[in-house]
Amino acid sequence: MKILVLNPNTSATMTAEIDAAARVAAAPGTEIYTAAPGFGTVAIDSAAESYLSAVGVMDLVATQLADGTFDADAVVLAGFGEHGKDALQEMLDVPVLDIAESAAHVAHLIGRRFSVVTTLARSIAPIEDRLLLAGLAAHCASVRACGLGTAEVDADPAGAVTAIVTEAGRAVTQDGADVICLGCAGMAGVTAAITAALGVPAVDGVAAAVGLAQMLVGLGLSTSKAGAYAPGPENPRTYWPLSQALGS
Amino acid sequence: MKILVLNPNTSATMTAEIDAAARVAAAPGTEIYTAAPGFGTVAIDSAAESYLSAVGVMDLVATQLADGTFDADAVVLAGFGEHGKDALQEMLDVPVLDIAESAAHVAHLIGRRFSVVTTLARSIAPIEDRLLLAGLAAHCASVRACGLGTAEVDADPAGAVTAIVTEAGRAVTQDGADVICLGCAGMAGVTAAITAALGVPAVDGVAAAVGLAQMLVGLGLSTSKAGAYAPGPENPRTYWPLSQALGS
Amino acid sequence: MKILVLNPNTSATMTAEIDAAARVAAAPGTEIYTAAPGFGTVAIDSAAESYLSAVGVMDLVATQLADGTFDADAVVLAGFGEHGKDALQEMLDVPVLDIAESAAHVAHLIGRRFSVVTTLARSIAPIEDRLLLAGLAAHCASVRACGLGTAEVDADPAGAVTAIVTEAGRAVTQDGADVICLGCAGMAGVTAAITAALGVPAVDGVAAAVGLAQMLVGLGLSTSKAGAYAPGPENPRTYWPLSQALGS
Amino acid sequence: MKILVLNPNTSATMTAEIDAAARVAAAPGTEIYTAAPGFGTVAIDSAAESYLSAVGVMDLVATQLADGTFDADAVVLAGFGEHGKDALQEMLDVPVLDIAESAAHVAHLIGRRFSVVTTLARSIAPIEDRLLLAGLAAHCASVRACGLGTAEVDADPAGAVTAIVTEAGRAVTQDGADVICLGCAGMAGVTAAITAALGVPAVDGVAAAVGLAQMLVGLGLSTSKAGAYAPGPENPRTYWPLSQALGS
Amino acid sequence: MKILVLNPNTSATMTAEIDAAARVAAAPGTEIYTAAPGFGTVAIDSAAESYLSAVGVMDLVATQLADGTFDADAVVLAGFGEHGKDALQEMLDVPVLDIAESAAHVAHLIGRRFSVVTTLARSIAPIEDRLLLAGLAAHCASVRACGLGTAEVDADPAGAVTAIVTEAGRAVTQDGADVICLGCAGMAGVTAAITAALGVPAVDGVAAAVGLAQMLVGLGLSTSKAGAYAPGPENPRTYWPLSQALGS
Amino acid sequence: MKILVLNPNTSATMTAEIDAAARVAAAPGTEIYTAAPGFGTVAIDSAAESYLSAVGVMDLVATQLADGTFDADAVVLAGFGEHGKDALQEMLDVPVLDIAESAAHVAHLIGRRFSVVTTLARSIAPIEDRLLLAGLAAHCASVRACGLGTAEVDADPAGAVTAIVTEAGRAVTQDGADVICLGCAGMAGVTAAITAALGVPAVDGVAAAVGLAQMLVGLGLSTSKAGAYAPGPENPRTYWPLSQALGS
Repeated sequence: MKILVLNPNTSATMTAEIDAAARVAAAPGTEIYTAAPGFGTVAIDSAAESYLSAVGVMDLVATQLADGTFDADAVVLAGFGEHGKDALQEMLDVPVLDIAESAAHVAHLIGRRFSVVTTLARSIAPIEDRLLLAGLAAHCASVRACGLGTAEVDADPAGAVTAIVTEAGRAVTQDGADVICLGCAGMAGVTAAITAALGVPAVDGVAAAVGLAQMLVGLGLSTSKAGAYAPGPENPRTYWPLSQALGS
Repeated sequence: MKILVLNPNTSATMTAEIDAAARVAAAPGTEIYTAAPGFGTVAIDSAAESYLSAVGVMDLVATQLADGTFDADAVVLAGFGEHGKDALQEMLDVPVLDIAESAAHVAHLIGRRFSVVTTLARSIAPIEDRLLLAGLAAHCASVRACGLGTAEVDADPAGAVTAIVTEAGRAVTQDGADVICLGCAGMAGVTAAITAALGVPAVDGVAAAVGLAQMLVGLGLSTSKAGAYAPGPENPRTYWPLSQALGS
Repeated sequence: MKILVLNPNTSATMTAEIDAAARVAAAPGTEIYTAAPGFGTVAIDSAAESYLSAVGVMDLVATQLADGTFDADAVVLAGFGEHGKDALQEMLDVPVLDIAESAAHVAHLIGRRFSVVTTLARSIAPIEDRLLLAGLAAHCASVRACGLGTAEVDADPAGAVTAIVTEAGRAVTQDGADVICLGCAGMAGVTAAITAALGVPAVDGVAAAVGLAQMLVGLGLSTSKAGAYAPGPENPRTYWPLSQALGS
Repeated sequence: MKILVLNPNTSATMTAEIDAAARVAAAPGTEIYTAAPGFGTVAIDSAAESYLSAVGVMDLVATQLADGTFDADAVVLAGFGEHGKDALQEMLDVPVLDIAESAAHVAHLIGRRFSVVTTLARSIAPIEDRLLLAGLAAHCASVRACGLGTAEVDADPAGAVTAIVTEAGRAVTQDGADVICLGCAGMAGVTAAITAALGVPAVDGVAAAVGLAQMLVGLGLSTSKAGAYAPGPENPRTYWPLSQALGS
Repeated sequence: MKILVLNPNTSATMTAEIDAAARVAAAPGTEIYTAAPGFGTVAIDSAAESYLSAVGVMDLVATQLADGTFDADAVVLAGFGEHGKDALQEMLDVPVLDIAESAAHVAHLIGRRFSVVTTLARSIAPIEDRLLLAGLAAHCASVRACGLGTAEVDADPAGAVTAIVTEAGRAVTQDGADVICLGCAGMAGVTAAITAALGVPAVDGVAAAVGLAQMLVGLGLSTSKAGAYAPGPENPRTYWPLSQALGS
Repeated sequence: MKILVLNPNTSATMTAEIDAAARVAAAPGTEIYTAAPGFGTVAIDSAAESYLSAVGVMDLVATQLADGTFDADAVVLAGFGEHGKDALQEMLDVPVLDIAESAAHVAHLIGRRFSVVTTLARSIAPIEDRLLLAGLAAHCASVRACGLGTAEVDADPAGAVTAIVTEAGRAVTQDGADVICLGCAGMAGVTAAITAALGVPAVDGVAAAVGLAQMLVGLGLSTSKAGAYAPGPENPRTYWPLSQALGS
């Protein structure tokens, strides 16, 4: 099967990391294609950037997938707490998986209470919102931030791993978590480091989403079109798709 | 004071209706300016269109307001259930009011349980999401739809009023609502018709938002910048503002 | 317009402070009248005193307002967490605003999570109850007390401000609040001190209620009489109004 | 042991009915004393009357019990949804039982979901509030009203029983209740009629409260004075106790 | 009346301690019979052991009670957080009381927020589950563990009391509890020690359940058979009752 | 990989049906082994039978799996709403999947609100309990029963399918479900019939659990042993494993 993994930001480095993470989780016979929007922002650290990235992935899907020239069996949206999944579910007939929700589902299956550890404190609110709307907040012990931004993580990956493991340790001892979800995409080695240091399972959202996508495709299930995710009416739009209008 | 009212769609008719509704609620001395995005969609009936409209109003604010050449004392986002308010709160120092949340706040002040009556059934889910995230769902008796889309409302305004009043009546008798919030923007005369027919107060979101905006400005209060709505980091963006890149 | 502000206790000092706070929030053209019950208690620090004060304000309204000789356009009940608002809503056709609920509504409009800072620890429970019943508890980060009673506040106002600012600081750093509601009536200068020290907006309940009262009157909205706040049946009462029977 | 049962209204007929209901539940050796306030209202059908009755029972306790001349081992407040229990808990060292909460506790012990059937629709809201504040709302299937007021019940007791049984039947079939709580005080024979007609247990609040009072006294337990129910400070009051000032 | 108290484990020492605790709470005229299963485990420290004990008490009831040769008026299941109550409610016509739920009900009647203090940390989750399912979690401040297992409690009873009182103190000061429920069965003297040290009431579950059982029998109430607790169909079983097949 | 599927009842017919359902969902390379307890009941229609079945599957695991002679990579507990999953999670190092929770997780991934349709009304309560404890109740629109028992389903399979589809239709139109979970195990063809008739996806719990088991094994994740599912202490048990003592 073919899974299209969407990096919602425009960073080529991040796209490569997400691609690598997705491939680790791919079963034999699964092909991974990873893409990023033609416009937007190199990192997503605000609601404004999250909306911009949602339109970016919508545009990507509209130009590359919805017309049928590319045929994915499932789509993974690799933004942890970012907007856009419901829009893609409206636009597509194949399953769409969000990495925040996917990580939370997997955490439920292997523990009693999970915590999310993300990078910047300002990402906590959108992740809490995502879990609340997805109906997955009841077993969330906490959403915590290690305090490092993208640039700092890139500059000192080993230090970033240490900071995340330290914060995950607080989630375990202070908040009662028995599973940790990694609240960002594309950091290699962090889940192994958490499990080694703390003795609890750690869930990478990209891997979880790829795994769940394979599961849904295997069971022949996809998004219900009978309710909230039915395709919307064809209202006239200007400059759509934006990437074509922009020439991006 | 000056209040900038943002119609998130690109329909000039709707912009005019929203402008009129806002002027009704404006106190003496309040100036109303109403604007719409330079790109997007003429109606918002899906999550995809909602995200597109959020980027549209962000672009509008970025080009017309955030640089200081235009000085509004408050901004009203006139989409009932649409995305974008949190992004505007990040971008601006002046208060930002959403018409769905504003209507719900006003309903709390004058009743025990409120219902929202909107147009299409597919708008129910995003309105429920908006109220849940805003912490205003506990006293919401129901969100109901009268089943008419924009075109039908335009073609037969009187029939649309009747359909909304009928659905509001079900909210009162079946769901126990004692206040009705009108779940769309820009329909003149509906709130009066509801109150006349059913004997319950009816709240128009645009009026509520303008009223609350005036209240906040009067009290000298604005969005807290100490938490979720602090401005985000200056991540590099491509083609931003989109309207300039598009020449729209 | 005319707004009647009711101090639920019998302290003339407090009545004057509340009156001053209300006048600060009044728009040009708004007349503020402040009154206190003819019987009751000089401070409200228990459920027993809260019920007594509710009957006091009911009596005040019954004798001065409900008969139409005095014509307020809105009534503000200036007890933070005290009982009585629903009784006044039954008795009156004009809007009735409670200062605890009003502060919470305003806090929702300008932040993500608010905390209330009150005086004595024993006021925490009734404030929590008020917010829960009003459907406004979901975004309340905490209700905290600075530990000073009325007498101590009167004896050392500057020290009281310091104590409240200190407790508000704990709400911000430990509980994640980005807005503070001042959980008592009539202390001048506290909200400015909180904002100066902590960089977060602070909401005074009396100001919030006056602002919201003006908003409702401006929009022509008042309490729904179709549900919980319909006037009750005319059951025979003895010694009512109590103030007349008491000659108070 | 001695149990003081407080009718919050001033109706002698109702006091007698409550007294009779309490005596049915009294174990051998339990003495029942029933009393009513010296001022107030003959029926409680509004928030205003509920507050007035709360002050009435506070006055009753202050004049007859709190000074130690009368020595009850427990107090039952026989108003279903009325205010005042927390005030009595502050004032007294012996246990205080509310009939709405007592009925709900007993219902939890013998079923999975309970409904309350009360008289007038306007009593639904205060009963819902009481259960929510008491932490007993999660298993409440519904609060329903049969639509008959006090006068109608008095005029046609048999018809009232039929109306209550009919409404209880709706609670069972439509709401999934397997226990019915009688949402008013003092109607003889109703619980037996419900059980005979519907095959579900029916709980009378007065009986439940007397039973629970006996249980607490038997176990040597009473209200915690370490938290919300500690006695309040001795703030100066005017005209207190009101009954003495009134000469009632 | 006769109350059958069931120790769900097979420890004779624990059975004797539970029997003693039950007798303390028995009113004059109440006969206490205490029994333990014929197979199972000497202590219950896991979900697996909890299910095993549930089948043990089901077997005990099936062989000694359900056939009518023994006639209890009520049954107390003396496992704090263990499974089985609902099964006994299906099997029996007399009331069945669980000690965890009973303690929580009593705590609600005498305080605002209660904490449970149990022995091992691994008992926290099942107690939380029990309270959530019973609809009694809203006023639960915390479930805490003192960290001592059965063997340690037996080896040093005085040290165990000290450890429990210390943990109860944390519940009061850190979690805001004003009542403590003892989260295990059969420890003499602990409730008195908690109250002496902390000034808050402490509730023993066995005593609470015996008291509530007496209350229900006194009121003539028992489990509703109209809903979840109706007897199940007579599906064929093998080796049932297990104790007979085992010859235990 | 090898997946052990446990039928919690002793019906060979049901074991065969569950086995067939599991094989449909098995990916190439997955081996399915299906087993049933050596004692217990041929159908599970009560809490008592559910506990008995939990001990049955515990015994099965203790005798066939926990000692290492059989090596499953994951275990599926094929009882919809039955007890026992947490016990197996304590006992085993490999992932354990419950079919009720698995169906709910899959439903979340492909819709907004799901309903469960089960057989007898008495199964509704335990399914609601299971979803509540699993933190998966927020998006559950309803749990409904078609009213047919095992014998009736066996006697008229086509009629049973019709009854389930009819009830699923009510879930869609009356409760707003856009996904249906089949609330029992082993009925071939029902999910296809629901989708054909109603146009919504239908989820079979056995298939969902097998799919999720494959996903977890593929990702190298298993139950956290750091919290609630750590193995319990080795308390002495009598007659354990029961099947050996029984010679079953």
